[in-house]
Amino acid sequence: MSPNPLEAILHPESIAIAGASETGDGGRFILSLVKLGFKGKIYPVHPKYQEVLGFKCYPSVRDIPGNVDFVISSIPAAQVLNLLDDCAVKGVKCIHFFTARLAETGRQDAIELEKEMLIKARAAGIRIIGPNCMGVYHPAWGLAWNPGMSNVPGPMGLISQSGALAFELIETAGARGMHYSKGISYGNAVDFNECDYLEYFAQDDETKLVVMYIEGVRDGKRFLDILQRTTAKKPVIILKGGRGKSGTRATASHTASLAGSAEVWKTAMKQTGAVTVSDIEELIDVAAAFYFLPPANGTHVGVAGGGGGGSVLAADLCEEAGLEVIPLPVEIREELKKQGNPVWDWISNPADFSILPGGAGTDTIAKMMASHPDIDLNIVFIVPRGSRGPLTVESLITQFPFDDMKIKPLFAILYDRSSGEKDPTGRITGIFNDFKNRLTEKHIPVYPNITRAANAAAKMVNYYRHRT
Amino acid sequence: MSPNPLEAILHPESIAIAGASETGDGGRFILSLVKLGFKGKIYPVHPKYQEVLGFKCYPSVRDIPGNVDFVISSIPAAQVLNLLDDCAVKGVKCIHFFTARLAETGRQDAIELEKEMLIKARAAGIRIIGPNCMGVYHPAWGLAWNPGMSNVPGPMGLISQSGALAFELIETAGARGMHYSKGISYGNAVDFNECDYLEYFAQDDETKLVVMYIEGVRDGKRFLDILQRTTAKKPVIILKGGRGKSGTRATASHTASLAGSAEVWKTAMKQTGAVTVSDIEELIDVAAAFYFLPPANGTHVGVAGGGGGGSVLAADLCEEAGLEVIPLPVEIREELKKQGNPVWDWISNPADFSILPGGAGTDTIAKMMASHPDIDLNIVFIVPRGSRGPLTVESLITQFPFDDMKIKPLFAILYDRSSGEKDPTGRITGIFNDFKNRLTEKHIPVYPNITRAANAAAKMVNYYRHRT
Repeated sequence: MSPNPLEAILHPESIAIAGASETGDGGRFILSLVKLGFKGKIYPVHPKYQEVLGFKCYPSVRDIPGNVDFVISSIPAAQVLNLLDDCAVKGVKCIHFFTARLAETGRQDAIELEKEMLIKARAAGIRIIGPNCMGVYHPAWGLAWNPGMSNVPGPMGLISQSGALAFELIETAGARGMHYSKGISYGNAVDFNECDYLEYFAQDDETKLVVMYIEGVRDGKRFLDILQRTTAKKPVIILKGGRGKSGTRATASHTASLAGSAEVWKTAMKQTGAVTVSDIEELIDVAAAFYFLPPANGTHVGVAGGGGGGSVLAADLCEEAGLEVIPLPVEIREELKKQGNPVWDWISNPADFSILPGGAGTDTIAKMMASHPDIDLNIVFIVPRGSRGPLTVESLITQFPFDDMKIKPLFAILYDRSSGEKDPTGRITGIFNDFKNRLTEKHIPVYPNITRAANAAAKMVNYYRHRT
Repeated sequence: MSPNPLEAILHPESIAIAGASETGDGGRFILSLVKLGFKGKIYPVHPKYQEVLGFKCYPSVRDIPGNVDFVISSIPAAQVLNLLDDCAVKGVKCIHFFTARLAETGRQDAIELEKEMLIKARAAGIRIIGPNCMGVYHPAWGLAWNPGMSNVPGPMGLISQSGALAFELIETAGARGMHYSKGISYGNAVDFNECDYLEYFAQDDETKLVVMYIEGVRDGKRFLDILQRTTAKKPVIILKGGRGKSGTRATASHTASLAGSAEVWKTAMKQTGAVTVSDIEELIDVAAAFYFLPPANGTHVGVAGGGGGGSVLAADLCEEAGLEVIPLPVEIREELKKQGNPVWDWISNPADFSILPGGAGTDTIAKMMASHPDIDLNIVFIVPRGSRGPLTVESLITQFPFDDMKIKPLFAILYDRSSGEKDPTGRITGIFNDFKNRLTEKHIPVYPNITRAANAAAKMVNYYRHRT
């Protein structure tokens, strides 16, 4: 089997930036490469400058000495055909067109120009990423489009038709301790499209999990086929833009996509085993479950640590998400009786810890729930206040025997009530953030409420069920 | 019409706390009254002490000189019948039983005891709040059960069967600038129940909006009748605990409630015009819309300020919530053309502001959308970063002509991406919190994402539609 064509493209030894100036978009690409530690050659291209950001600048791509593997086009649409000619002469393998104002404007001349770009590229054996996109994120290779992007690599692959949402997905994931192998913002997809990128991530050993934001699919049959083959190997989480009437209208002016029918899409997704989500938060919530946790073998959930009303709502919300809140296993009840726990016949699942006199027995109950064979996964509520003394990271991290409970998927809930007037200095936020980081180091994801945790858990269970 | 019996009870001139010690639960009630500025008499009752927290302590309620309007019982269940005898002698009007371990334990002797309490109270003309609850919150009168509770009054009434969730609802609302007229945590509801509390809030002029957490309803017919009459006057937002199989099991051990069928409940709620929600976040989200905004007259929404992908998703999510994202009104397009806006034929609804060269025209477009007769409500995305310079409160507050847009319901979206490693000092959180406070002072609620704003908007519109 020949290597995937994107493998070489994602590992360039030399990059030219057409339209590079110190303060413009082209310069930002250069700053990003420098900041993320790109080891190869960087060639700014601009007819006006001798030097850009400390790098020797060339009037055109033709003038660059030595090989140019990859070109980032940050020039106006009117100049792209000339750039393609220059790249053809130079033997460039791939151009990422950051250049926009093409088919997405809906204007006939721009649509024609986009077609001509492809014809010229095909003739010269040049592949295209974009146009109208942010391009490639590959932290381990030093590739990014914004100097603020993380240089920490991880096992997640990212495919996004929108550059802004790709950035959101990188930022939001990073804040929850989740990182990427590679990411692509691919815009109008005139050449490489969602199928090609997905096929790449399917065979990429550095990627254990793929997240996608797509607005339209160019070749439905091929996409579903690749998707099905990918989900058999690793989870694919898909956020579809353009699900409704008005969203479809919006995709046309955003990436010139035809979004298709929502119902057809839903059915197709179910058949492929892909995990579908409806917004950024849900995408990251669900990804966190796959990212941090071992596979879940069933829907039986044990819930512990909430108060009375919280336990009632937790039961409702787990059940509504598709999990099964089984009664407390009889062996646990018997063991509590043996230990002389005064609420042995009252405590249940969800285990309302507020009825335990002095909180006695919380560790034992949590551990027994996590290790009982009838329970497939566990959710625990972290209580940020109460009679346990002042709020510190330690007061949070010692609430549960986390290390002993990790034998099964474990979801932690920490209500974030620090907003507004309650936390003017950000002190509480700081403690919460520290706590979340410490838990994710233990591979335990933290969710802000039970609704979001239960949803992520249920979607994870469904994925593994479909796969087996 | 005779005044509602709760009116006098919620305005006590003298309160006795049975079972008051300096560091126990009884003492916490005293500290709360002091902290919130209760103006009446405070009488600690405990056989062992001469003084508690600076107040003269009495061995029993009988020994208190002068009237006792209200008693908080913080004594063990075994002593409650004696307390009732003492209160009968003293002519007490109402006892709040914080005392728990009664019917909710499921034990026969405890269930019997709870019945005897009611019989004794009835015979003496004493009304009961609880047992197994936190009691009364009335900030304007200085009543609370936790010294940390806000003393700021507001137009929201709170009825909660769970004390912990009542506290959550007060805290969470407060962090978003929303405050309460009165609140009741009512537990096992042996005497006063959800019907009585709702009836009180229905006629209370200080209450413009009611939020409820209930697990079970004692008298379904009466409840639905009162609910329907209340929603005709003011919005009632209901979070029901015990919607499913396992949640129903949990309500029994929490407040001895019989939760009933989820389907019957749903249908009944629809008929009454109550607004139903499924968790704490959603309750506060929806309440914020009613709390801050004028009524919405229809579902046509204008969305502005997102990027490309964000606009696409916003359209989908609004539509899925039940709003209608109408195409950009032709008058606005014509006006933009007249003004020479270069994207007059490309910009749409949602208005993707990232296609406006240099951001020119954002104010004009936002203002035109808010004042156009075809648009009933508006949603705007606040962008916390970009080319506008460093992040400050001013950079956020000047993004939209908020004051000019307030003529219709306006929902602001600010993605909170400050969590985790991105904001170790809490600086960004501080700026966001300041901004949110400034917007809510302008009566504009802020939501963390479009899903939650669209849901709140749709539920608000539905309420007003049902009412008219």
